[in-house]
Amino acid sequence: MELTVYLAGQIHDDWREQIKSQAKDMNLPLTFVGPMEDHERSDNIGEEILGKQPNAIFKDEAASSINNLRTDILMNKADVVVALFGEKYKQWNTAMDAARAAALHKPLILIRPEALHHPLKELSSKASLVVETPQQAMQALSYIFES
Amino acid sequence: MELTVYLAGQIHDDWREQIKSQAKDMNLPLTFVGPMEDHERSDNIGEEILGKQPNAIFKDEAASSINNLRTDILMNKADVVVALFGEKYKQWNTAMDAARAAALHKPLILIRPEALHHPLKELSSKASLVVETPQQAMQALSYIFES
Amino acid sequence: MELTVYLAGQIHDDWREQIKSQAKDMNLPLTFVGPMEDHERSDNIGEEILGKQPNAIFKDEAASSINNLRTDILMNKADVVVALFGEKYKQWNTAMDAARAAALHKPLILIRPEALHHPLKELSSKASLVVETPQQAMQALSYIFES
Amino acid sequence: MELTVYLAGQIHDDWREQIKSQAKDMNLPLTFVGPMEDHERSDNIGEEILGKQPNAIFKDEAASSINNLRTDILMNKADVVVALFGEKYKQWNTAMDAARAAALHKPLILIRPEALHHPLKELSSKASLVVETPQQAMQALSYIFES
Amino acid sequence: MELTVYLAGQIHDDWREQIKSQAKDMNLPLTFVGPMEDHERSDNIGEEILGKQPNAIFKDEAASSINNLRTDILMNKADVVVALFGEKYKQWNTAMDAARAAALHKPLILIRPEALHHPLKELSSKASLVVETPQQAMQALSYIFES
Amino acid sequence: MELTVYLAGQIHDDWREQIKSQAKDMNLPLTFVGPMEDHERSDNIGEEILGKQPNAIFKDEAASSINNLRTDILMNKADVVVALFGEKYKQWNTAMDAARAAALHKPLILIRPEALHHPLKELSSKASLVVETPQQAMQALSYIFES
Amino acid sequence: MELTVYLAGQIHDDWREQIKSQAKDMNLPLTFVGPMEDHERSDNIGEEILGKQPNAIFKDEAASSINNLRTDILMNKADVVVALFGEKYKQWNTAMDAARAAALHKPLILIRPEALHHPLKELSSKASLVVETPQQAMQALSYIFES
Amino acid sequence: MELTVYLAGQIHDDWREQIKSQAKDMNLPLTFVGPMEDHERSDNIGEEILGKQPNAIFKDEAASSINNLRTDILMNKADVVVALFGEKYKQWNTAMDAARAAALHKPLILIRPEALHHPLKELSSKASLVVETPQQAMQALSYIFES
Repeated sequence: MELTVYLAGQIHDDWREQIKSQAKDMNLPLTFVGPMEDHERSDNIGEEILGKQPNAIFKDEAASSINNLRTDILMNKADVVVALFGEKYKQWNTAMDAARAAALHKPLILIRPEALHHPLKELSSKASLVVETPQQAMQALSYIFES
Repeated sequence: MELTVYLAGQIHDDWREQIKSQAKDMNLPLTFVGPMEDHERSDNIGEEILGKQPNAIFKDEAASSINNLRTDILMNKADVVVALFGEKYKQWNTAMDAARAAALHKPLILIRPEALHHPLKELSSKASLVVETPQQAMQALSYIFES
Repeated sequence: MELTVYLAGQIHDDWREQIKSQAKDMNLPLTFVGPMEDHERSDNIGEEILGKQPNAIFKDEAASSINNLRTDILMNKADVVVALFGEKYKQWNTAMDAARAAALHKPLILIRPEALHHPLKELSSKASLVVETPQQAMQALSYIFES
Repeated sequence: MELTVYLAGQIHDDWREQIKSQAKDMNLPLTFVGPMEDHERSDNIGEEILGKQPNAIFKDEAASSINNLRTDILMNKADVVVALFGEKYKQWNTAMDAARAAALHKPLILIRPEALHHPLKELSSKASLVVETPQQAMQALSYIFES
Repeated sequence: MELTVYLAGQIHDDWREQIKSQAKDMNLPLTFVGPMEDHERSDNIGEEILGKQPNAIFKDEAASSINNLRTDILMNKADVVVALFGEKYKQWNTAMDAARAAALHKPLILIRPEALHHPLKELSSKASLVVETPQQAMQALSYIFES
Repeated sequence: MELTVYLAGQIHDDWREQIKSQAKDMNLPLTFVGPMEDHERSDNIGEEILGKQPNAIFKDEAASSINNLRTDILMNKADVVVALFGEKYKQWNTAMDAARAAALHKPLILIRPEALHHPLKELSSKASLVVETPQQAMQALSYIFES
Repeated sequence: MELTVYLAGQIHDDWREQIKSQAKDMNLPLTFVGPMEDHERSDNIGEEILGKQPNAIFKDEAASSINNLRTDILMNKADVVVALFGEKYKQWNTAMDAARAAALHKPLILIRPEALHHPLKELSSKASLVVETPQQAMQALSYIFES
Repeated sequence: MELTVYLAGQIHDDWREQIKSQAKDMNLPLTFVGPMEDHERSDNIGEEILGKQPNAIFKDEAASSINNLRTDILMNKADVVVALFGEKYKQWNTAMDAARAAALHKPLILIRPEALHHPLKELSSKASLVVETPQQAMQALSYIFES
């Protein structure tokens, strides 16, 4: 049995690589999917495909249509969603992905430092599990496969 | 025909009162529901009902269970959800409410200043309508009732 | 027992008035909802609320967000959808409303002249009932209330 | 990971072949499904299987049952739907397929020339993404697979 | 609290009147809905509204569209469905209504004489409750309102 | 705005009366629904309506059909479910009602003494809120109506 | 691409073998599932597994639980359902299977001789396609795979 | 065709091994999934991954989040759920799993000794099939594969 995991969160560092690496070391039958991690490409994909837009707002709309299309298709394939929050960035798209997973009843693991417990209290309440580090998320996923 | 509107957003100022006031002036058959707006009561309701908790994190969990219960019940009654974002506060609970509405296919009006278009691009793409002020949201709601 | 009926179709003539008038004469407990029928207002509502847009395409996008918001909210209230097709206009929005009703399993009555049977064959197959005139649609609705 | 794509649109030229060809060149793991492209066979399949019908309307009904059966089964298998609109033909069946996909929450890419933006404004608003050429649609699909 | 009850079954005798009468005597807050009980009108409604059809099969199709439209709309309003089976008539439409209710998770009370237990065994297994007479069905409905 | 509350739990004492009484004192717009509270009647209703059954197991099956019919219809009307657990009785039907509410995404308040936290840990995790007394449940419900 | 087909209908003759044979000859990638075809085994399976039951009615209930379990699991796997009706037998279980498929929005092909058009008129209206012979059903299924 | 079976029930003895063993002997294409069977590990997994918790109640909450995450993910993969009840232990989590399966319309086989028929009467009524031993459950599953 295999599981597909959607990794939602900021695309400014390589936290996903750490998770994939750990999964590999633990030999877990997991497939990881997620957003475009090249931040510049993610912001520019709208104009790249649809051409120059009138202003920054429309540029963002164009990019978002394409990025959301990607998220929708990939999250539909996921058996579980992992959403990572950190101190930096507004991360409203991460909150959107996490909440969407919860509303669609896809099991959700939320990773957040203890310091962010207050602004994330409502979202935490909706998650299946709240942990503080990607390693803990991996341990929980690993537990699913233990006989 | 009447509509019930869930007003999601921060509870640090009285933006909801402005909306309700405008609706009244326009004679719109709207019922408004939303979260507890007394910020202190909202944070303390967990310990008020369940008793003192071991630490701040558990205090938040207790309050969130009760606040989410309220949101779930009231949002279920809503025909449309309005979510307001501003420059202050993390607003991850607002993003959660907005995304939940979208995922549950409840029509969603997102209010955000133009300056926040970038971090809200993905959520904006999921909303039925994006406006910049509560007045514009009210105009859109009013339009629904015009013959 | 009352029924709410969503009237989907072009907004260039007063076919809806005829239907409402017939329902009144027949004393049927029906509430009718539908799109904005003032064609100019429907096209301009985007710029009216959101301000001038960069070009005609964005002007249409703005208006459509608001018109779709209205359709979504009102069609959700409907017990049955009536979609009228005629020889004039592309009517892709009507086809969209009709198909959406069918996909959402809302009973659908399709009104179309016999001459349009060929291009409407697939949509007709999805409708609960296909008639040629609004009067026939009203007869079918009236039949629901007969003991 | 593979994706199944339903190609909705007129069956009077070979636009689907161009898409499949491009997908092949780009080495994308896509499976394409769609309607019967032999226009004559599509119109005659009802009488071919069920025998001669009383008149043209019933002939169309018979064919539509079978064509809709095919669409329903194949669209159910799709992860994403692409709907192409052009200047010719009424294309109400295309609008039906596109709207059905949107209502069923299947991601939808709408391809239409800029000249058709007005009659397609409502449907465009419901699509995940709107582009002007099949090539742009392929670029968007390709983007989903990029790491 | 009121309940709406859909009475599915043959329309060749007045068994529904007995049920409504008993409900009235017991003062139960029930609203009853059901199919057209005038058998001739039910069979002819297609041609009455749509005009003469090519043959008996098409005459039946026309009537069924309209009768199913009525059933769909009224059964959607029901809180519970009662389906009565008897020794006479094929009653495949009753089996369809009963099975549809069960598949849609609407509570279903099946009334059948003991002699029909064998051919109705699968449908009985899907019903919430199986009784032998309309009086027993009424007793069960009455029980719902007892404090 | 009113709410309907389903009170699930053992029917051996009058805990429901305490809740209704408190709601009345607090002037809350709540309607309470629940199972038959006369324990003997609840056990015997099967044979009362359907006649004597072959043995105790079939007697229970007959009664359960009718009691579940009542639960299904009434729980469908509920906006929120309250499930009470205590030290006595197996209460598997209560666990069933609670779990059913959670699975159907109806907000659920679970009332249990602290001593039962261990065997109820999984069910507690699925509830919207866990409290120890009916009074606390009422306080949470009351909080929903506070402006 | 493969399709799973559920064959619903009486189990008194080998009509399913003819369908499977034709599918094989036509090289169609179809997997067929269906009920237990050994009529005696189907009727006795309840007592075979659960032991002797008090009377014929309970014997049927026991068997139906097991046969419905099989139908539920296998029909869930189906992409399309084929339901065959003939002049003999009450076939209420077939009507149940067909109606359940339609209500669950699984495409449904109904096979019935012309002579049964009247009692099957409502069910026919709900089917995706109505044919008169298994061969016609196979032609329709084959059409799905044609490029 | 293969089936995935979720085995819900107490984790204090090896009843699952007996079932898997029997399935193997009967050569059935079944995949079994279930909870963590090491009772101590199941109770401690919360603190193992998340660290020491303030008290026993929070220790249980932490473990339950992780155990429920496992159940949710694995039960989503199941085609059928088997729930075993016995004389020992409160088994409210088993009742929760069984009821959740029934509410989600996953076929459910309930195994319980005759002596427990009374407290399990409501849950039994919701199950697809009730048997007294794991062997009978296996016979029913085996029957699904018989031609």
